[in-house]
Amino acid sequence: MTNADAGSLMAAQGRVDEWISQFQEGYWPPLANLARLMEEVGELARLINHRFGTKPKRPEESEQEMAEELADVLFVILCIANEQGIDLDQAFDGVMKKYHTRDGERWARRAE
Amino acid sequence: MTNADAGSLMAAQGRVDEWISQFQEGYWPPLANLARLMEEVGELARLINHRFGTKPKRPEESEQEMAEELADVLFVILCIANEQGIDLDQAFDGVMKKYHTRDGERWARRAE
Amino acid sequence: MTNADAGSLMAAQGRVDEWISQFQEGYWPPLANLARLMEEVGELARLINHRFGTKPKRPEESEQEMAEELADVLFVILCIANEQGIDLDQAFDGVMKKYHTRDGERWARRAE
Amino acid sequence: MTNADAGSLMAAQGRVDEWISQFQEGYWPPLANLARLMEEVGELARLINHRFGTKPKRPEESEQEMAEELADVLFVILCIANEQGIDLDQAFDGVMKKYHTRDGERWARRAE
Repeated sequence: MTNADAGSLMAAQGRVDEWISQFQEGYWPPLANLARLMEEVGELARLINHRFGTKPKRPEESEQEMAEELADVLFVILCIANEQGIDLDQAFDGVMKKYHTRDGERWARRAE
Repeated sequence: MTNADAGSLMAAQGRVDEWISQFQEGYWPPLANLARLMEEVGELARLINHRFGTKPKRPEESEQEMAEELADVLFVILCIANEQGIDLDQAFDGVMKKYHTRDGERWARRAE
Repeated sequence: MTNADAGSLMAAQGRVDEWISQFQEGYWPPLANLARLMEEVGELARLINHRFGTKPKRPEESEQEMAEELADVLFVILCIANEQGIDLDQAFDGVMKKYHTRDGERWARRAE
Repeated sequence: MTNADAGSLMAAQGRVDEWISQFQEGYWPPLANLARLMEEVGELARLINHRFGTKPKRPEESEQEMAEELADVLFVILCIANEQGIDLDQAFDGVMKKYHTRDGERWARRAE
């Protein structure tokens, strides 16, 4: 498993950087990026509530839109990582290890 | 650009699925995942405010923690995508294309 | 100060209850209300970013809109409080006392 | 209904202002307040998920805590309103009128 995922997220970070770095403005500062993240998470929340909550569903909000909203959130995450010089592959690796260590016994395992 | 990024996010989705699918509980339903996302985004917000906002900084909150918080948010995004059967590579591709089309002229380009 | 604020928020909770209780659906369950709260906070975030962040301002987003977005967030807070049977006057009182106790020496006081 | 609620939220805004204005720092700027709001909404999300979601409940998280988290969110709303010079009574009044106009026929009314 070790090397197979190497660079898994780096490619996505690279595509965002290629896009952002062509503009004079470059990356936004952290607090503005955070506000943008909240905006996108809010749109995802609206969609999830429409589809899975009590709010009356609007049929025009399809699975396609769910994918788009998730990717919009992901885009902001990648922007924050790039602006902060964070290697998301390494960070994600750390989080997966944390879960293995901390939560390995927290839930019931499936029977073999 | 087409094939170079193929599977870029799929590997990360796969690692999350490998982790989650060993437990009886499996994925949470969308509204619970969304609440979890808000929790993690809130922790990121707290950290960004401590480091870049007006709130007094706490020195123990390092760059390392920023990477961890971002990866925690990413983890929930991957969970929601997996639970919904969403291919994030395809969705991310769509978002990048949307930005190219919609925002290509929105900001000033760097001089060559 | 004690009695002057009595019922300060109860009136607002009452107006929301009067509104919601006329419909068969009544209050949403907590996770759906939370998703709604995230949606409204996201709209507030978008507006704050447009006016005070790096994102290009849109002139049509006035102070009036800021007041509306804040009141939309407040409305959801009042819904959650009502649905949970929470007395916000009492809770707000507790928070103000917590700040007085915990943060009284945290920031520099103005000179008299 | 008109005058009975007059000043309903003004008292709460006044208490926050009395508290904040004694410190040299005064109110935070909008983007920092927004980050703070996200942090508090995140703590509320965590609690709601523990009590009403799929996440294993922790018994120490009582109704009392729900009231506190809601009041923490409310406190930040009042800070943003004060910092922006917004009259929340007037804004809340506008929102209630908007709901009456827009949503009056959206849900089924209870039978008399």
